[in-house]
Amino acid sequence: MDRYKTLREQAFEANQEIPRRNLAIYTWGNVSAFDPDQGIFAIKPSGIEYALLRPETMVLVDLDGHIVDSIYRPSSDTNTHRVLYREFSGIRGITHTHSTYGVAWAQARKPVPVFGTTHADHGAKPIPCTEVMNEKVVQQDYELETGKLIVETFQKNKLDPAHSAMVLVAGHGPFTWGKDAAQSVYHAAVLEEICKMALLTLTLNPSAEPLPDHIIRKHWERKHGPGAYYGQTIP
Amino acid sequence: MDRYKTLREQAFEANQEIPRRNLAIYTWGNVSAFDPDQGIFAIKPSGIEYALLRPETMVLVDLDGHIVDSIYRPSSDTNTHRVLYREFSGIRGITHTHSTYGVAWAQARKPVPVFGTTHADHGAKPIPCTEVMNEKVVQQDYELETGKLIVETFQKNKLDPAHSAMVLVAGHGPFTWGKDAAQSVYHAAVLEEICKMALLTLTLNPSAEPLPDHIIRKHWERKHGPGAYYGQTIP
Amino acid sequence: MDRYKTLREQAFEANQEIPRRNLAIYTWGNVSAFDPDQGIFAIKPSGIEYALLRPETMVLVDLDGHIVDSIYRPSSDTNTHRVLYREFSGIRGITHTHSTYGVAWAQARKPVPVFGTTHADHGAKPIPCTEVMNEKVVQQDYELETGKLIVETFQKNKLDPAHSAMVLVAGHGPFTWGKDAAQSVYHAAVLEEICKMALLTLTLNPSAEPLPDHIIRKHWERKHGPGAYYGQTIP
Amino acid sequence: MDRYKTLREQAFEANQEIPRRNLAIYTWGNVSAFDPDQGIFAIKPSGIEYALLRPETMVLVDLDGHIVDSIYRPSSDTNTHRVLYREFSGIRGITHTHSTYGVAWAQARKPVPVFGTTHADHGAKPIPCTEVMNEKVVQQDYELETGKLIVETFQKNKLDPAHSAMVLVAGHGPFTWGKDAAQSVYHAAVLEEICKMALLTLTLNPSAEPLPDHIIRKHWERKHGPGAYYGQTIP
Repeated sequence: MDRYKTLREQAFEANQEIPRRNLAIYTWGNVSAFDPDQGIFAIKPSGIEYALLRPETMVLVDLDGHIVDSIYRPSSDTNTHRVLYREFSGIRGITHTHSTYGVAWAQARKPVPVFGTTHADHGAKPIPCTEVMNEKVVQQDYELETGKLIVETFQKNKLDPAHSAMVLVAGHGPFTWGKDAAQSVYHAAVLEEICKMALLTLTLNPSAEPLPDHIIRKHWERKHGPGAYYGQTIP
Repeated sequence: MDRYKTLREQAFEANQEIPRRNLAIYTWGNVSAFDPDQGIFAIKPSGIEYALLRPETMVLVDLDGHIVDSIYRPSSDTNTHRVLYREFSGIRGITHTHSTYGVAWAQARKPVPVFGTTHADHGAKPIPCTEVMNEKVVQQDYELETGKLIVETFQKNKLDPAHSAMVLVAGHGPFTWGKDAAQSVYHAAVLEEICKMALLTLTLNPSAEPLPDHIIRKHWERKHGPGAYYGQTIP
Repeated sequence: MDRYKTLREQAFEANQEIPRRNLAIYTWGNVSAFDPDQGIFAIKPSGIEYALLRPETMVLVDLDGHIVDSIYRPSSDTNTHRVLYREFSGIRGITHTHSTYGVAWAQARKPVPVFGTTHADHGAKPIPCTEVMNEKVVQQDYELETGKLIVETFQKNKLDPAHSAMVLVAGHGPFTWGKDAAQSVYHAAVLEEICKMALLTLTLNPSAEPLPDHIIRKHWERKHGPGAYYGQTIP
Repeated sequence: MDRYKTLREQAFEANQEIPRRNLAIYTWGNVSAFDPDQGIFAIKPSGIEYALLRPETMVLVDLDGHIVDSIYRPSSDTNTHRVLYREFSGIRGITHTHSTYGVAWAQARKPVPVFGTTHADHGAKPIPCTEVMNEKVVQQDYELETGKLIVETFQKNKLDPAHSAMVLVAGHGPFTWGKDAAQSVYHAAVLEEICKMALLTLTLNPSAEPLPDHIIRKHWERKHGPGAYYGQTIP
């Protein structure tokens, strides 16, 4: 019996959401699912179309980057996932895409302000954008350094990855995470919609102001606070 | 026999239009259907995907906010619907969405001018945008206060909810209504299209002027006036 | 036997293209097919969804505006079609839509410059935009006056309706025509794509220049000139 | 037995990608597949809808422009393809489309800067845009001259067609190529996505800066360099 069956299935299913939600064309996105007890994550194999994936084709990797069992090479972004699982405790799924509006903000190298309740429902802070990677770190382990850059960006901005589940890597694109693989890809779709709405907001009003703090807090708390009343169960 | 069967079915069917018309992703929108004789409305349960809804899962609520019969918690926006049914007499359906262009205008905090006949066919006035809610009212009953803010916005702008069926809540998104649930979601789709057209109009011509009054009146009246001649029946 | 069978079928089929090509939501567009020998055109009935249309539900109208045979009221834009069939000899199909980018240009009240070969393949001149209708003519027969305004716009701009098959009515939207109903709706789809491309061109380069005349002429003539070599038959 | 069977099938299949990937409406795009051993390429027939194509309807043309065997006239752009196969050694597939964002950049007459890794994964240089064709060459063999203009643009910009597989013809639209027909249409879809992302980037930040060279090189090389590690095989 395969002790990684659930992990493979979660990663497989979440990867299918990328084309379904139009979060990337061709193979330009990857999702992983992490099991902290086993210290293993399942991730999309590199460069293979979503339609050809099966749960068995997911690649199993441990937190030191060793491939546990696979006939395929894992996503080229595997080391970025690995650093985030190591450093952001509690997250169990990560998604990376090249979704159109997310990439546009990353290429513009700007954080996404909290312009409205759609954003506040999913995070009380702007979506941060990293610095552009310098030559030295790019020449080292590029994907590993991408992960470290995300962690540093969260430290510098005093952000808690348990409450802010989205980031833009400057000149590259979005990474998102969650309590499982499914939620990480949900956050990828939410990020894309927030990025589109924010761009259109600035088109209409270049000096648009962020939502005041009291509304941001209210929306965040009605979904995620101790007295949350959105949905059918207390989260 | 279920005396609320029709109401449940109307609410169920109108909620299905939200994903069909691309008015929200995931569960980000809700429709209710109101029966003024029974003083009851049927509304989407909170946080449940459209594909999982059934007429029986609609939540029945009275105008005091009591849940008449349900295994589910109603939409978190229920109190906004309730205030509107109380204050805007004659309306029998309400829709709230986070449709992309509607939200962009709400986040830009701008009313939508009547730039053309597409708008005039559905309302002779700009689509109003509320003020941003202040801290005091947000800390009270937020959703109830959202409804009150919409009502105040209509009073301040001297708008008649029987003729203006759309509003933008600043920093949040659109609410629309109609003579039944189906018409309220029709108005939500119309609002989204009008908002997209108006944004593109300003992109082409930042000093675009509204349609002159004589054309606005003509279009409104050929669809809604005493001598209306659009469609197959006099409305 | 129905002597209008072909006309009904052409109008029916061309109307189906409106939703298929995303040229309007709900019922916001209409196509007619004209037979100059019989002096009759078949047009969409007013306010009926495309999915409910049948060839038999098309309304037959003569050039004086008399309804020849129908249980339905014709499109409210019928008199605009009628004027165009009277004044623009040779055209046998007309389409009116509220397609998004076409309406944006009409609301911005700007003609669409010939920015590229996509446009030049379908017309050697900018797509004209009418004046805004004044109060006097709006209070007369509005739809008839809309047709007259289009004709005047063509006269003033010295345009030949045999070579320029598209127009924007200011503050309203596009009308297009062709050698049959199918070609008129083809032109409606082409207009929408040209309008989108032109808006994006100006977004990238607000001082974008039109294509030089020698390329416009070349593209027009390779498709429509005496030595045309596009497609499988000389047009 | 048909010695061109594979070539016909490759061209047929790649042409089907144009509507599937929304790279053109109607018949506004064409793909060809080249066999350098036979000196023959198979190309879409002119003006025929993608849904009506069959492998047998592809037109076979040699590098002197002679039609080898066909009941159809080839694409009007055949001579552009022909020049590129002659001058850009090693390419075996070419795609031309009128994709919306690609055309917008071509009409704006601007090269597309390398704003991010999505671009760098597919080319280390900006996508070049040709000069506008002058009157003299347009009056000669227009499509042949289009091909020559592309070749000159590559010479002037010191670009290697083996590494830069995309170009914009000013006022017209994109041409792309690849190691086979399938890759050429892949590049056409990539170009469209890059063009959309770049336009949105400039909308957010009109002074957006290109990706620094060290990241461009890194991304290009991880996919195409000697130590490439993207995908399942060394390219």
